[in-house]
Parts: sequence; C-alpha cells; structure tokens
Amino acid sequence: MKKFVNNPENFVKEMIEGVVLANPNLKSIPEYNIVYRADMPRNDKVSIIQGSGSGHEPAHIMLVGRGMLDAACPGNVFSAPPMEYVLECTKLMKSDMGVLYIINNYQGDRMAWDMAREMAEMEGIKIGVVIVDDDVAVTDSTFTVGRRGVAGNFFVIKAVGAAAERGATLEELVELGKKVNSNVRTMGVALTSCTPPAKGKPIFEIGEDEMEVGVGIHGEPGRRRDKIKPADEIVDEVYKAVRDDLPFKGGDRVALMINGLGGTPISELYLLYRAAHLRCQDDGLTVVRSYVGNYCTSLEMAGFSLTLLRLDDEIEDLLAAPAEIPIRVF
Amino acid sequence: MKKFVNNPENFVKEMIEGVVLANPNLKSIPEYNIVYRADMPRNDKVSIIQGSGSGHEPAHIMLVGRGMLDAACPGNVFSAPPMEYVLECTKLMKSDMGVLYIINNYQGDRMAWDMAREMAEMEGIKIGVVIVDDDVAVTDSTFTVGRRGVAGNFFVIKAVGAAAERGATLEELVELGKKVNSNVRTMGVALTSCTPPAKGKPIFEIGEDEMEVGVGIHGEPGRRRDKIKPADEIVDEVYKAVRDDLPFKGGDRVALMINGLGGTPISELYLLYRAAHLRCQDDGLTVVRSYVGNYCTSLEMAGFSLTLLRLDDEIEDLLAAPAEIPIRVF
Repeated sequence: MKKFVNNPENFVKEMIEGVVLANPNLKSIPEYNIVYRADMPRNDKVSIIQGSGSGHEPAHIMLVGRGMLDAACPGNVFSAPPMEYVLECTKLMKSDMGVLYIINNYQGDRMAWDMAREMAEMEGIKIGVVIVDDDVAVTDSTFTVGRRGVAGNFFVIKAVGAAAERGATLEELVELGKKVNSNVRTMGVALTSCTPPAKGKPIFEIGEDEMEVGVGIHGEPGRRRDKIKPADEIVDEVYKAVRDDLPFKGGDRVALMINGLGGTPISELYLLYRAAHLRCQDDGLTVVRSYVGNYCTSLEMAGFSLTLLRLDDEIEDLLAAPAEIPIRVF
Repeated sequence: MKKFVNNPENFVKEMIEGVVLANPNLKSIPEYNIVYRADMPRNDKVSIIQGSGSGHEPAHIMLVGRGMLDAACPGNVFSAPPMEYVLECTKLMKSDMGVLYIINNYQGDRMAWDMAREMAEMEGIKIGVVIVDDDVAVTDSTFTVGRRGVAGNFFVIKAVGAAAERGATLEELVELGKKVNSNVRTMGVALTSCTPPAKGKPIFEIGEDEMEVGVGIHGEPGRRRDKIKPADEIVDEVYKAVRDDLPFKGGDRVALMINGLGGTPISELYLLYRAAHLRCQDDGLTVVRSYVGNYCTSLEMAGFSLTLLRLDDEIEDLLAAPAEIPIRVF
C-alpha cells in the first residue's frame, strides 16, 4: 500500500487534526469527527451541515467555512457517519433559524441522517433536508436506491451556503437546494481503483488498458467496462450522457466542472476541460463559470467526472458570492 | 499508460487551450506555448514571466494572473522551453519598467533564459533575473549545477507578483525575489514514478515498498532509496533536513507548505501537514500561513514536498495580498 499513513485506524482523525491546525478559524470535536466554524452557530443564520464517508476530500470537511458548510461529521473512509456523530453535530450547530442537512443519496447516509433528524426534532431543533443525487450513470447502485450523489454536491453547498449568509430561511434554502440539485448532472470515468488505508487492498480490480465508464465514487460499477480511448472520445460519451439527461439545450447558461477523482494530474483535467468546453460551444451552451480541479474524490483514484449545472440569475449570483474554505490556494 | 490524452505530441497545447477556455482573462499564443494576461503588458508595471518544463502544473501556466505571473512559456513535459519561446514571451510582455525572469535552477532553463535575455537586451528591453534554488536534498543533480528549484518557486512568484502590482521597480523586485529565495527551503519524497505522455513509460523504477527521499521534480535521485515508513517518521526526516539547512530557529515566523506531487490525495497531504505543523510547534516556529495542496507537481507522481519560508513583515504582507489565477476553487 503506497500511502502516507501512520496507524490506518487513525487516518481520518489525523487528517482532521491537520485541517484544523492549518485553519485557525475551524475547530473540531475529535470524538465525533466533527469539523466546524469557530464562529458558528448563530441564531440569525441557518446552520448547514453534511457528513458522508471520508475519502472524498475536499468533500466534505474541507468545504467547511464562511459561505459553505458550517460543520461536517464524516464517517470512516467510504463509510457513513454513525447516527451519534450526526446528532452531536446537529446539536452543536443548533440555531433558532434551523439546521439544514445536505445528504448525498446513499443508503447508509440516508439512514444515519434520518434517525438523527427524528431525535433532533424531538429536542425541538428545526431541520430541513436536501438530497443530492446528480449521477446520471446508473439508477439503484451498490449502496444506493435511486441515483448517487457525487460532484454536484459542491454546487448545492455553494449556492445554499451563500444564500444562508444573506439570511435566507430554512424553507427558502430547502427550495433552493432542491432547485440546484434538479439542474445539475454528473458522470464519471475511472482509470484505476483506490485503496482505503484500513482495508489495505484496492476496492476493485481493473486491467492495465481498461476504464470504468460511469464509475461511482466508492468504486461502484458504472455503465460498462471498456478499453481506454483517446481523451476526446471519452469526453464525448460522458458529455452526451450528462447533456441528454436533463436535457441541456442550446441557449442554456451553464457551469462546467471537470472534477478529478484524486490521482489525475490537473494537466489532464484541463485537457479534458478543453474537450468538454468545445462540446458545450458546439451545442450552443454558454459556459459562464468553469471549475477544474479536485472537488469530490475517491482517495487516489485516477479518473474524472464531468458536471453540468444549468444556471438562472439566482444560482449564478450565488456561485459568484465570496466564500472561505480550507481548499483555497493563497 | 493510464492517462487522459489524445495524441501525446499535443498534450501541452491541448492543456493550454483548456486553461485559456476556462479563464477568459487569459490569452495564448499556441505557436510558442505562451499563456498571458489579457490586460498585460502595461508600462506602469514590471512584467513577470516564467517558463520551465511542463508536467509541474499548476506551475507555471496556471500561476498566470493578477498578482502572480504575467505570462508563462513552458516547454514540453520535463523539457526547458526553446529560446525562441522565451524571447517571444519577453517581447510580448515588454514594459517600460522592465521584465522580470523567475528561473528555476536547471541547466536547460538557465541556458534558454540566458540566451533570450541577451537578445532581448540587444533590442532594448530591460531584464531582471531571480534564480530559484530551494531544494535542500542534493547539490549538483542530473540536470542541475547547484541546487534545484522546486515548490519554493510559488512563494517567490507570490511575493514579487504582489509587489509588482503595487508598483515596485525592477531592481526592487530582483532584490525581493532574492530575499524570498534565500529564506525558503524544500525537500520532497516520492512513493511512485510518473510517465510523460510522449515517452509512454515511467521516468524511473521504484519497488512496491520503497520511497525516494529527496527526489527531484523530474525524478532525479534524492539522498537515498528507503523502505516506506509511517508518515510521521517520513515527515520527521524531511522536516529536520529543511529546518537545519537555513537553519530555522525558535521564534521564527514561517509559512509552511505541504505540496503534493500530483498523485497524492489531499487527505494524505493534511495528515502530513499535521505532523509538520506539530514539529514546528515543538521547535518554537510560529506557523502564520499554511499551504496544503498541489503547487509544483511531477505529473501523477505520488509524493509530497515540505517547504518552510521564513517571514518578515514585508513578505508576510505580500503573501496575504489578493491574487487571481486559474487554480482557484470558486
């Protein structure tokens, strides 16, 4: 296993400690894997929280900050957080205006967050829920009924995070989150597998000349296994699958994201971005915001996903709002 | 070769096209691999340019933008740019206040930039030079006389870029660049090799349980080959090598960077950051700025480098100044 790791059991906790050491405006509660804004909660702002498996960094603990998440409570690598983590995180972020859950659509996550919600509501905390399920590859996957939630999650968080800073109510944020989710579509491709530290072996096998088209972020099977093709041909297929699903049409304004799955260099991501941008131009889609980098990963997996988000004035404005999270450059 | 690529000969050009498509404030001259700010040159600001081999992205083409580089002219993957690229880039960015070259210390780069400088000066362009050589691992390497220039380059660009926006003269920028370089130290470790697209095979071989301590960003040998150890032990060795070189001492204010070499997930980088930050605390170094991510890479190589920069008020202020480059998040 070629990884920088100490005791694999401490992988998530040591990563969290690093995030908090590097970001003095964040705090943590190690017992529950909670990372939260030191200046939250506030009773004049809805708190926004999320927690899914670890291993998808920067999602979700590195998306905690002003204008994004107020707290995150991840589980172990590729494991939903235990219900108690979610409940403790909810109580910690309790606000008079309510707490918004943004939940990626996996069975384990749904169950943990549903149970925590019931218990939090019994304690008088007002909860709103937005489910993210943007992956067009397949319906009903290894860990999912319905569609999987993947990189589109970033846009949901960015939009509701900005709106919450402006004082939106819980009901408004739920409606906004659902709107963003209903306008975002994603599909991914993997060239390699990846190895969770505590497992010590790859989550699936793949040949030296193969790719998995439509892969899930936990290595779930996609639409099919194929031989590797030139990058432009791969983008062609992924782009069309994403475009035709909503469908996106000529005249649409869009945000275009090429998301790395962890082990793909940014040079290749920009080469893929080029192809995707040109396809948008050919179809008359206007790309008004571009995102190229690692937003939702699968440890060191080599691969990418392509996300299109249809914009209206409200969403475009919220995407452009300032935010401050650990995955900054400067 | 598990890469997203079309014709490997077009790898750099297609990447550059992607960067420009994603960033409407940038332009390119494909013939010379030049990426430049659409609003430059200006006669009231020194132009800052750089060009080394490709394959180290985001360095250097994704560091072009307000407050950083004004233009970059990379060569092919791991190859210095031809002299004509540098000369054309210099002429394009000609300014009454002069043009600053930031050159990483490799023989090929030095030669191309020295020749271009002579020719540009014959045309009446005023040139200043800053050499970056922050790698403490070895002296006189495969492609280098003296020390190699690696991730410390980011800090030199950030500081002189900010000062240039404030109107600093060419002479002031040269002095500032030299000051930053003289206060920054780096060392790296590789777990894997990497494969240039046009070469199609790894640049060196390394065993499944091995690491290269002190590796160069083109796979140059480091101090020694060793078995992989726990992350904290690896950081211990790298940190001490960097600390003792300047040396950094108790009471110093520092910027601390854990730079990924391309294939290492950010979860592992934060785990490494934790260890490095704690070592700084133990030694009484105050970490006032933290950088965790991919700044200077070797394609998809799994590995990291640790950089310490000793700060004074001037450098700290310049690092905090705004900048706008392609590797933003939002």
